[in-house]
Amino acid sequence: MTSNILRGKELSDSILQNLKLQIQQLQSTGLHSPPGLAYILVGSKIDSTTYIKLKRRACDNLGIQVFGYEYEESVAQQELIDCIKRLNTDPSVHGVIVQLPLPPHIHEANIINTLTPEKDVDGLTSSNFGDLVMRYRNPLFYPCTPIGCIELLKHYSVGIAGKHAVVVGRSDLAGIPLAALFNKANATTTICHSYTRDLHKFTQSADILAVAAGQPGLIKQSMVKPECIILDIGINSLEVEGNRVLVGDCDFEGLKEVVSGITPVPNGVGPMTIAMLLKNVVTSWKSTITNS
Amino acid sequence: MTSNILRGKELSDSILQNLKLQIQQLQSTGLHSPPGLAYILVGSKIDSTTYIKLKRRACDNLGIQVFGYEYEESVAQQELIDCIKRLNTDPSVHGVIVQLPLPPHIHEANIINTLTPEKDVDGLTSSNFGDLVMRYRNPLFYPCTPIGCIELLKHYSVGIAGKHAVVVGRSDLAGIPLAALFNKANATTTICHSYTRDLHKFTQSADILAVAAGQPGLIKQSMVKPECIILDIGINSLEVEGNRVLVGDCDFEGLKEVVSGITPVPNGVGPMTIAMLLKNVVTSWKSTITNS
Repeated sequence: MTSNILRGKELSDSILQNLKLQIQQLQSTGLHSPPGLAYILVGSKIDSTTYIKLKRRACDNLGIQVFGYEYEESVAQQELIDCIKRLNTDPSVHGVIVQLPLPPHIHEANIINTLTPEKDVDGLTSSNFGDLVMRYRNPLFYPCTPIGCIELLKHYSVGIAGKHAVVVGRSDLAGIPLAALFNKANATTTICHSYTRDLHKFTQSADILAVAAGQPGLIKQSMVKPECIILDIGINSLEVEGNRVLVGDCDFEGLKEVVSGITPVPNGVGPMTIAMLLKNVVTSWKSTITNS
Repeated sequence: MTSNILRGKELSDSILQNLKLQIQQLQSTGLHSPPGLAYILVGSKIDSTTYIKLKRRACDNLGIQVFGYEYEESVAQQELIDCIKRLNTDPSVHGVIVQLPLPPHIHEANIINTLTPEKDVDGLTSSNFGDLVMRYRNPLFYPCTPIGCIELLKHYSVGIAGKHAVVVGRSDLAGIPLAALFNKANATTTICHSYTRDLHKFTQSADILAVAAGQPGLIKQSMVKPECIILDIGINSLEVEGNRVLVGDCDFEGLKEVVSGITPVPNGVGPMTIAMLLKNVVTSWKSTITNS
């Protein structure tokens, strides 16, 4: 490594470029309809609409059709279920994502598990998630953020087997599935969270430290060893001198002076998440072409 | 605790006694058919036939009907799938277990995922397993060995939240789902396995140590701290002076002198596994009564 910054944005760009070529190539035959991604967005939370905008733009750049289903905060659960059932059988849709979180009156698991695992490009149906975690099973799609982290480590030739991987945070989108992937890649894996006593004891032991706690400045220089590779998955929007800035969960400036590798925020794990989502959509699309 | 031995057999006996009373009570109305457990056994591996014998005997004692489907080692996969499909809709069967391992020509996940999650009393379908691991979802049935471990800790008032739980071994039957349960119970959780370097570093940090590695004598006195609670999930059959004896993965005699708590082998975790299986069957049976 000539620098210790793990540039997720660069890798993401090259993955997206490659996907674009794949789509163009298959499309040029004139035989296939384009890949399609449908999203369901409920309400107008600023984070959710921002993420959707980013995903939509990335799809546009690649030639992936986007089908947006946007609902009022007050939408009835049955309406979402009916929408997903239609998307399950819609041949122009190869992937469906439900932008989370959903409002409290909606049963998130019921909604997501209505989705056929074959179009579950976020990897969040119970059956895909079970297959992700189980030793000798594999999901149809891996959740995008954790598989993006693994791809980033691979790209920078960071070995995982035999390492101590410590994950801080245990969300279904990041911490839990990433811990499962570290375990499958033969790392000794520890999950820390808000109940963890002496967090620094675990982070100091980490060869690979992944942080998805949503707490700016949680991980400081004194909490890690110099050989450590850090994946900062936190995305926190802070107001600094009147401006909105995005920061992760780690003290990037302090840590980059001492560790072997660290992802920046922005331009680290975030872009990898989007690249993996689109990769999943293209994989799903290609499988319908192969099977047809 | 007056003794530091965690007596799984005693707790198991009292759970089974309680289940027996529940069955008798509901049966005494004359309105309900008895609970039924079907098993699928392929081949005649000595371990597998022994486990089936133990489960069958426990069912007989409780008044649970047992439906045995035993196949030659060479059975075709489709035959097992057809059998499970019939059991899925058989109203006298409330739980189905597939005794593992299956022969190499059978795709284990395909067989198990043919089973409806509503009768998956081993908790091993992908969707039940995903719901076990995910933060805000719950499976219809928990895998029997890990939930038996949790029940045993509860019975002995061993707190889990905030503790460092270390699991050695990562099978789908024991290590992985137990780690998920420790995490859900708010322990900081580490999974160790054959790739782990410096195993003793992790075991020495453990407040709760669960061992399911299948290696007799793996955990010794020097590897743990005195406050540690040990769950020995290993079941190894050894020949000692011409006799077959069952031993766990821990040096029980040495460890019981120093630790806060330890399960013996036999009569520790093993009987809890069977009690939890039968509890799952009775839960499934009762749900059909409630829903009818």
